[in-house]
Amino acid sequence: MLKYSISPDKIRYKIPKEIDKINEILKIKNRCKIERNKGKKIVLIQGLGFVGAIMAAIVADCEINDKIPYFVIGIDLPSKNSYWKIAKINSGKSPYNIADSEINIIFQRTIFKKRNLLATYVMDAYEEADIIIVDINLDVLKLENGNAKNSKVIIEPFKKAIIDIGKRINPESLLLIETTIPPGTIEKIVKPSIIKCFKERGIDDKNYPPLIANSYERVMPGKEYIDSIKKMHRTISATNQKAMRKVKDFLSSIIDTKNYPISELKSTTASELGKILENAYRAVNIAFIYEWTLFAEDIGVNLFEVINSIKVRKGTHDNIMYPGFGVGGYCLPKDPILADWASEFLYKRKQYLKFSIEAVNINDLMPHHTFELLLKALGNKNILNKKITILGASYRKDVDDTRNSPSIILYDDIVRFGGIPFIHDPYAKSILGREDIEIQDNIEIALENASAVIFVVNHNQYEILSMNYLISYINNNACVIDAFNMLSDEKITFLKSKNFKVLGVGKGHIKYL
Amino acid sequence: MLKYSISPDKIRYKIPKEIDKINEILKIKNRCKIERNKGKKIVLIQGLGFVGAIMAAIVADCEINDKIPYFVIGIDLPSKNSYWKIAKINSGKSPYNIADSEINIIFQRTIFKKRNLLATYVMDAYEEADIIIVDINLDVLKLENGNAKNSKVIIEPFKKAIIDIGKRINPESLLLIETTIPPGTIEKIVKPSIIKCFKERGIDDKNYPPLIANSYERVMPGKEYIDSIKKMHRTISATNQKAMRKVKDFLSSIIDTKNYPISELKSTTASELGKILENAYRAVNIAFIYEWTLFAEDIGVNLFEVINSIKVRKGTHDNIMYPGFGVGGYCLPKDPILADWASEFLYKRKQYLKFSIEAVNINDLMPHHTFELLLKALGNKNILNKKITILGASYRKDVDDTRNSPSIILYDDIVRFGGIPFIHDPYAKSILGREDIEIQDNIEIALENASAVIFVVNHNQYEILSMNYLISYINNNACVIDAFNMLSDEKITFLKSKNFKVLGVGKGHIKYL
Repeated sequence: MLKYSISPDKIRYKIPKEIDKINEILKIKNRCKIERNKGKKIVLIQGLGFVGAIMAAIVADCEINDKIPYFVIGIDLPSKNSYWKIAKINSGKSPYNIADSEINIIFQRTIFKKRNLLATYVMDAYEEADIIIVDINLDVLKLENGNAKNSKVIIEPFKKAIIDIGKRINPESLLLIETTIPPGTIEKIVKPSIIKCFKERGIDDKNYPPLIANSYERVMPGKEYIDSIKKMHRTISATNQKAMRKVKDFLSSIIDTKNYPISELKSTTASELGKILENAYRAVNIAFIYEWTLFAEDIGVNLFEVINSIKVRKGTHDNIMYPGFGVGGYCLPKDPILADWASEFLYKRKQYLKFSIEAVNINDLMPHHTFELLLKALGNKNILNKKITILGASYRKDVDDTRNSPSIILYDDIVRFGGIPFIHDPYAKSILGREDIEIQDNIEIALENASAVIFVVNHNQYEILSMNYLISYINNNACVIDAFNMLSDEKITFLKSKNFKVLGVGKGHIKYL
Repeated sequence: MLKYSISPDKIRYKIPKEIDKINEILKIKNRCKIERNKGKKIVLIQGLGFVGAIMAAIVADCEINDKIPYFVIGIDLPSKNSYWKIAKINSGKSPYNIADSEINIIFQRTIFKKRNLLATYVMDAYEEADIIIVDINLDVLKLENGNAKNSKVIIEPFKKAIIDIGKRINPESLLLIETTIPPGTIEKIVKPSIIKCFKERGIDDKNYPPLIANSYERVMPGKEYIDSIKKMHRTISATNQKAMRKVKDFLSSIIDTKNYPISELKSTTASELGKILENAYRAVNIAFIYEWTLFAEDIGVNLFEVINSIKVRKGTHDNIMYPGFGVGGYCLPKDPILADWASEFLYKRKQYLKFSIEAVNINDLMPHHTFELLLKALGNKNILNKKITILGASYRKDVDDTRNSPSIILYDDIVRFGGIPFIHDPYAKSILGREDIEIQDNIEIALENASAVIFVVNHNQYEILSMNYLISYINNNACVIDAFNMLSDEKITFLKSKNFKVLGVGKGHIKYL
């Protein structure tokens, strides 16, 4: 029976069979020989998610003095959930639908013009690499929303991937870990694991200490997706001087390190911790503003104008966050849990990170508040059998990334209370693991006869949406909920003048009711 | 019997008797008449603390087109705790000992040269004012350190002060509240109170709606004390348009609003909330870093280098705080409690601000960690009867401000465990309410034969302290604890080479033990 991997834009790709593997291995080995003869180094990128895919394209696109220094192989699993990424890239397309016009161009250029990038699923490719970059997931499974303590850190696939590499990597090649991992993972798991593999292969780790580096990327899907790699500071660390030199040379060749200097830390544990601290900082500041959002709404203060008056203090107060709908994406909802896990399981220490973990809980439950505003706005007209339109499925402006999207929580709340949610998104076509949720891409159909419309993410299409257009589709006297500060005072005044009820997260009820 | 008010630098000032009051009133009234005839407006500043005193000097120093627009009267209580401020100012000196060379100059100039400022204790002065600025305290009494819920908000003196003003203020004068007050205080307490006073005086509040404004200052004692008023953004709000115009005109005359534009908020509740939110933001970010400090220390990471590598992300991550000793001063330890109180008592709402209140608790207990480091460093040599020197009594660099100084907590820990604390400070001479604590200003005496030295605040004197000098006074093998990142790696290496034991908050034990 043929097996298929279906991409988020619903294209079916045939997963190769076991018998295809031998040819694939030969093809890769042969290709590496040719490219190496051209003087190129072989860079292998493991994991073709939002980080790995764009890293692959950027490294493949790199030129130094008009020469192409790297041949790049992207590797992922031949599985239902992952194979489509391999197929997409090999067809010259970005696996992700993102409003960065450069994205498809860079994949086309590196696949068809430079012929300098390919994606595969065979692990034998590891043997050929001068540099292996690990960008696979290290997931956290939350067993209960709002109780981060009841989570499982799924570290086994990461451990297995490291062993797969250890069995095959050239001992003089660099292993660069970009995956966000619990602090201490390289010292306590990766390094011992690679040394063990070396011993089994008869490689003496005294003469060949493994060359392991950690560099935490700051990739941000969106309009500046490519620049979020190339024009962004990097933090690096390594298990020894040689690895440090190698990672520095490599990253300096693809990143604008003149304008975005690299920070070198003294231990891999420090940089592993840095990545998580950086994200915990954001998570805590979002959770902090949430309690002030509730307070300000309750006493009739528009928190946006207050925060704007605080943000003028550059350097001390301008990182303060605005009220919002919730937190999605891959990092903020899980990273603090990784550090907590490390403290308990890698170090047998106390669980110090109470604030950071509590922030994850607060943020996970935050979308319920928008649902409460919806119920408040609907008032006597209850939600039963009402069409409720959610504008936005992805968690971030102008991308199709729906990982941990707070829209899902809101969707489920509406279902639970008997409403009929319609979810619209101009980028996202589906939500992984939630195939029951249909995403509408036609905004007219999404809005037609809605009893309520909820703005949850600032996609450009929603920012430019005309209020006249909106009210021509939704029901008379419908409610409009602004969970992302999308509606200007002018738009709100207009809607109210036409008898629509408007509420906004953080905007102060008194003013708008 | 004569009563005295003793200043922090231990000068005794005779408190005026009841009989002196009549002369004082005549003097003030007469003086106001003279100054008004010169075309000046009378500005009265109530409360001569760190905010009121410097406001008084700056307003008195103001010139517009070579003319002096304001005559300024500072007012405080003729009490043991406060009268010395009046006496100091009238003698042409700053009440506070601060490393801003302009401070004494501005008091001398306004008192002796411009003769445009005086301080008094008679409330009758209110009648003369065109503008009354309220800078008195609104205190929080914590009944239990580390349990902010068990606190009393001492609002009665503030309420009484407002009534004292309401009984006397010219109904066309501006009442500008600068005191940090619970959100809603102006709408729910100040305005009704003034209207009630007006009614009792036969003033119709329809024709004379009270002119009340709120502007939250951002005064910071220290080297930039004056600039923290003049070159700092202001947020303002008012109970009506006329008051808004008056406060804007006034503040524009003393603040560099061209380079530091004013933010106008739509309600006084919004600006009251803004001030507290701004400080809660800092308090929460300090508490957040504390848990990472403990974690990083425990797993051997120097958190300072990690945070430096995160701070490069300007605009999103550069407000992240460094590890530290604790939080002092008048604002951060109490402001979130004011908002919590407002929610419960002014609005009868939930207590939303859990994160912010928990931050106050964490910060209040933080100095205990430095004591734990001290015990760890002392090791077998226990603390009993050992001289332990604390370098710093004030909570902030180069000022004598000891309000809520974390040094006090550390001092008490040392006493409780049988050690003998010596506390040194080049600025602070005493701690209000803790007259039992003697502050040493001679560093040689402070260091001599110490078994441990703890750096707790970054006074310039400590930054430039030579390690050779330090070790020539302290005991051999003494411990040096760096609670404020005062010691460079070079200094630490030097101390260790001489067999001193060094530990630092947030520096990672493994590296330094």
